[in-house]
Amino acid sequence: MSSAWEVDDQTPEEVAAQERLYGPFTEAVRDLVDVAILTEVDAAEVDRARAEIEAVTARLRRRQRNGSFGVRYDPAGGRTRAWGNAVVGLRNAVAPPLRVERDPSGDGRVSSDFHLGAAYEGPPGLVHGGVLALVLDQLLGESAGARGKPGMTGTLTLTYRRATPLGPLRGEAWIDRVEGVKTFAHGHLLGPEGATVEAQGVFILPRWARESATRPDRFE
Amino acid sequence: MSSAWEVDDQTPEEVAAQERLYGPFTEAVRDLVDVAILTEVDAAEVDRARAEIEAVTARLRRRQRNGSFGVRYDPAGGRTRAWGNAVVGLRNAVAPPLRVERDPSGDGRVSSDFHLGAAYEGPPGLVHGGVLALVLDQLLGESAGARGKPGMTGTLTLTYRRATPLGPLRGEAWIDRVEGVKTFAHGHLLGPEGATVEAQGVFILPRWARESATRPDRFE
Repeated sequence: MSSAWEVDDQTPEEVAAQERLYGPFTEAVRDLVDVAILTEVDAAEVDRARAEIEAVTARLRRRQRNGSFGVRYDPAGGRTRAWGNAVVGLRNAVAPPLRVERDPSGDGRVSSDFHLGAAYEGPPGLVHGGVLALVLDQLLGESAGARGKPGMTGTLTLTYRRATPLGPLRGEAWIDRVEGVKTFAHGHLLGPEGATVEAQGVFILPRWARESATRPDRFE
Repeated sequence: MSSAWEVDDQTPEEVAAQERLYGPFTEAVRDLVDVAILTEVDAAEVDRARAEIEAVTARLRRRQRNGSFGVRYDPAGGRTRAWGNAVVGLRNAVAPPLRVERDPSGDGRVSSDFHLGAAYEGPPGLVHGGVLALVLDQLLGESAGARGKPGMTGTLTLTYRRATPLGPLRGEAWIDRVEGVKTFAHGHLLGPEGATVEAQGVFILPRWARESATRPDRFE
């Protein structure tokens, strides 16, 4: 598997068509993941569902990419597609997915309103502490990358102030300071009763990104 | 949604039967999540798959629990089922899932060998930094809970030493020290070339667990 961006020759129209196709498809898979946790239909119905899912999967595997989705960039549209990303990936049913809004000023401030359901549980009725870390890592990383430097996580420190109930949440992140290849980003998650988790991270511009001719500034 | 363990009246045989039913079913959903990222079949086939998945989901929703799975405990078998858990949940297709081994000495040392595929990607071909945090939070929490104190995360600090490629991985965690309701746990993830991420966490025994009559000591 590659660890570089792939530049492809998709036109903006082709990318838009894929988005219309894979967006609802992956939403259907997410809905199945949710009901797989919650269903209480009888065993025969669960077994029948399993057989049907296996048949669908076999058909989808007839032509497929190996490895992982990677991150793809189309020069024509200037869009970076991290569609396999575990937090924001359009085609990844593990991802909630988050849609990250960037402050138009370009100062690195990002935010996201999102919903975490049954699939993100840790203690009963609460979001898994590690899922909160996962989301914050993405938000802080996107903040750090907002100035054109896609960073990889160097260190991440999370302080859990109170339990985070499953349901609607908001995340915010911003750049505290930049020192050479290191970007220091901060952020937090907000539940119905205010901040539940605070995060501080150091993101480092990796060598391959420093040397790359294309410098995509946005994950989607 | 509740934030307490649910004690139910399942017999050990009923729990075993559910495990045999839901284990393979959820594996089928995980396989679908993987191919949803990777498939390159034509648009008509993707749309057909979406319609079929939606039909399966609708049938599974005819009888279902609301909210989330929670954590259930059967006194007869003495087993705690965190089957909706985002890292270890038998019924959660977001979970890889990890199977966590505990050192029989009861000193809190835990380990897990697991595989992370396309659904856990961050940078191209690499595990998402936040997924590594998610896995380590679970391992450190299980370590902290090994002495009968299921803890919630207080703080978690991750130091990323090198990139972690998608594929086979191993995680290890252990208790550094205990101070009252706080347990200090350490751990790391090991890739093909050694440790990639180190973690330190403080886990706190929440009030509801301190007051609970049942003290389950194991997540499954």
